[in-house]
Amino acid sequence: MLNELKRCGRQTAYFPTAPSIRGIGTVAGKKESNGPLGAYFDVKLTDSLCEKDTWEKAERKMLVDAVDTVLNKTETSENEIDRIIMGDLLNQIISASYAASEVAMPFTGVYGACSTMALALGTAAMLVDSGYCRKTIAATASHFCTAERQYRFPLEMGVQRTPSSQWTTTGAGACLIVPHEPAFPSITYFTNGVVVNFDVSDVNNMGAAMAPAAAETLRAHFEETGRGPDYYDEIITGDLGLYGSRLLEELLEKEFPDFAEKHFDCGCELFKGDKSVKAGASGAGCSALYLSRIFRDMVNGNVKKVLFTATGALHSPTALFQKESIPGIAHAVAIETEA
Amino acid sequence: MLNELKRCGRQTAYFPTAPSIRGIGTVAGKKESNGPLGAYFDVKLTDSLCEKDTWEKAERKMLVDAVDTVLNKTETSENEIDRIIMGDLLNQIISASYAASEVAMPFTGVYGACSTMALALGTAAMLVDSGYCRKTIAATASHFCTAERQYRFPLEMGVQRTPSSQWTTTGAGACLIVPHEPAFPSITYFTNGVVVNFDVSDVNNMGAAMAPAAAETLRAHFEETGRGPDYYDEIITGDLGLYGSRLLEELLEKEFPDFAEKHFDCGCELFKGDKSVKAGASGAGCSALYLSRIFRDMVNGNVKKVLFTATGALHSPTALFQKESIPGIAHAVAIETEA
Repeated sequence: MLNELKRCGRQTAYFPTAPSIRGIGTVAGKKESNGPLGAYFDVKLTDSLCEKDTWEKAERKMLVDAVDTVLNKTETSENEIDRIIMGDLLNQIISASYAASEVAMPFTGVYGACSTMALALGTAAMLVDSGYCRKTIAATASHFCTAERQYRFPLEMGVQRTPSSQWTTTGAGACLIVPHEPAFPSITYFTNGVVVNFDVSDVNNMGAAMAPAAAETLRAHFEETGRGPDYYDEIITGDLGLYGSRLLEELLEKEFPDFAEKHFDCGCELFKGDKSVKAGASGAGCSALYLSRIFRDMVNGNVKKVLFTATGALHSPTALFQKESIPGIAHAVAIETEA
Repeated sequence: MLNELKRCGRQTAYFPTAPSIRGIGTVAGKKESNGPLGAYFDVKLTDSLCEKDTWEKAERKMLVDAVDTVLNKTETSENEIDRIIMGDLLNQIISASYAASEVAMPFTGVYGACSTMALALGTAAMLVDSGYCRKTIAATASHFCTAERQYRFPLEMGVQRTPSSQWTTTGAGACLIVPHEPAFPSITYFTNGVVVNFDVSDVNNMGAAMAPAAAETLRAHFEETGRGPDYYDEIITGDLGLYGSRLLEELLEKEFPDFAEKHFDCGCELFKGDKSVKAGASGAGCSALYLSRIFRDMVNGNVKKVLFTATGALHSPTALFQKESIPGIAHAVAIETEA
């Protein structure tokens, strides 16, 4: 029965038609472009205001430009897109909803904080695999300057950063998902996360808030698909950062001793070597930018099987003022190329 | 080919297996319970703080209670639910994400402002129809006191209300979606909206910001399904309120002269007769509460074909401070019982 084939466990959906990631468009800030992954980004900003008068408008422009870039690169027209699934970190996901009014595509707004790219990718793949849509786009963005002032302090204060703090990525990414094309990486499974509240309330240690959620999602993925870490060439989490990554490896060490050797974290990779960012990168744009590295390596045949597990801290200043801890979530997308 | 059967146009998905709404659980505030629809609600609050110390925690409790209510009414256990799709009006959708950590179900966070119930219902139905999930829950909530202070003014100010202003509903609703059961109303189509920005920037006239989006979604639904307003017993919009509803009827008058006679608006119905609410009700909880009326009338056989079109103003205080207008969106769900 069809239903049983596609439901591979409570959290995991299986995609028999394996929709493909036909392309990715990325827009990256200056600091991000100067990092070790700079060569993978399409648009490299020199002006982080993007010639706009506010950071919020700049973030939105980055998102629209990422969508335009993937459409241009894949020679796809706007009206071929049946659905754009987007979200971002700002209140009322304004980057996504205002961007949606500019790109004129049917819009599904999602919220998963920094896990948004995986949630959007998984949802986009479901819509194509099930046949409700022909082509879909999954996109997200974040901007250091909008996130810092919404979640932490006004930029003008120049607050000192703690060692466990992460640097919100200025970046946007948009993936075009289409029915299976053998030459491109394909999405085979999507494991939807549960919210895990581990009682972390340190706003400067998001990695600790997210690591338990990442562990839960990875456990569910391995159990429901019958795969172990050895199946994958790379297991990408992000943005856990330095301390969150260590914590995750410790959490999974006993059950999956081979996990750590396959594990990379977007938050650790994006600014690698840059000590000013402390524990690494964060933000919805972090894993989105990192996907461009994964995509190119898969198209070139250097990597064949990746588990992309974006993590999100469902952090809210209002909830913290009310003495709540920070819940975390992680969603995992299995991306594979043909052997 | 399966794919062609399910994609009924760019915006509309068709559900060949017609997943059913097996039940609905609702929690309503005092004012809502005293209104004309009071008899349909399950839990009627007398204390709008729900014995919590903040309105935000109260809103979350309402959401959790709505979920528990539908599980109890349908004798379904928590771990039978493969996915809960939730969203709300608060920044970082904290009602939904914190509620998700309490109910322990795989969670998909969505954002569509007051259109959230239709977006969640449509997504929940897709997951069941396509076979990725067995049983899903679509839920949302809003609270007058949390919305008022986040979007407008501190409650303590006692600001006077303009005639076109709407009253945010204190209410939560949760629907259980299961594979087709002939005795219950079933979801047959879902039309995903586009974002329409009609250059309205009056925060006290949300109806005007949403009506053009509702018109677009209804047009797309009628065109892509080949149905007209005559097909439906009731076409529900919400929460357009008094002025938004009139505007919508004017916008559709020429193309669909029979639209107005089938049209009801959740925002106009919830507090009908109560002059203190000015142009009507609003909030994600508004259409969620109204669904309980639709559900009961459909189960009793009084109504057979309903087009549920929840509308959302993607309103953001930050965007308004930056001189932006308010974009709107609407999503439509066709709900039918067997003839």
